[in-house]
Amino acid sequence: MSKLTFSVNGTNKNETRLDVEARQFSIVVDEPAQLNGTDAGANPVEYILAGYAGCLNVVAHIVAKELGFTIHKLSVEVSGDINPARFLGLSNDERAGFQGIKVKLDLDSDADQATIEKWIEVVENRCPVNDNLANPTPVSISLGQRVSLN
Amino acid sequence: MSKLTFSVNGTNKNETRLDVEARQFSIVVDEPAQLNGTDAGANPVEYILAGYAGCLNVVAHIVAKELGFTIHKLSVEVSGDINPARFLGLSNDERAGFQGIKVKLDLDSDADQATIEKWIEVVENRCPVNDNLANPTPVSISLGQRVSLN
Repeated sequence: MSKLTFSVNGTNKNETRLDVEARQFSIVVDEPAQLNGTDAGANPVEYILAGYAGCLNVVAHIVAKELGFTIHKLSVEVSGDINPARFLGLSNDERAGFQGIKVKLDLDSDADQATIEKWIEVVENRCPVNDNLANPTPVSISLGQRVSLN
Repeated sequence: MSKLTFSVNGTNKNETRLDVEARQFSIVVDEPAQLNGTDAGANPVEYILAGYAGCLNVVAHIVAKELGFTIHKLSVEVSGDINPARFLGLSNDERAGFQGIKVKLDLDSDADQATIEKWIEVVENRCPVNDNLANPTPVSISLGQRVSLN
């Protein structure tokens, strides 16, 4: 199957706010006042949790169909803890990002317990965002255009 | 330093759309028509890229201050490829998520080249989202409330 390419492009409005374009959608990323931001939008890691929740919803419905049951309603709660010390430059003792991420699914369906357990297992295996969070992903950061007075 | 807890809560509107609350912010996650969605918002992996871009912006400004230079403007482009075969249940040959993620920074600043290279290195090391994408993160998915007719 041919690969799909996804891309976004953001421009900074201030030290914490980035206005991002993803196709026809505008996404404002900022930080709350407690993290020295202007709080014009959800913060970066909240978007990670939201994307993860949304991805689980999509895969949950695909897999439910395959397993032959109907989802009447699904709620997805995602949470995680971060020690901001490394991010803020205070200490390198702990990792920068989420130390773990917990998902709680509230499901209204006509499936039995064994089917639901199988469903969770398959959803976890096939959710793209779950994969990128649970497993290492090669990332590369490069400098494109540079404008400087020096 | 005490940990910060972040959490979001989403409810499905249809098979691809999840309406997510993150503090006072509403985030609509959907899929484009090509992925059988209703295209009411950016898709899950676009939010991952947007969160990554936003996180890099925040850390970029913190580290630039530490290194003593001023960012006049910063643009962040993030992209990656996904083979949808596993996600769609067609094949398990390749991973479900991004096979790699590329970031391009366009920077207008008063920094010299050596300082910029150091800056990119430190930003990559301290960006929470970079950490969660580049390195494994423990995830757990559990069933909360279950309503069923069975």
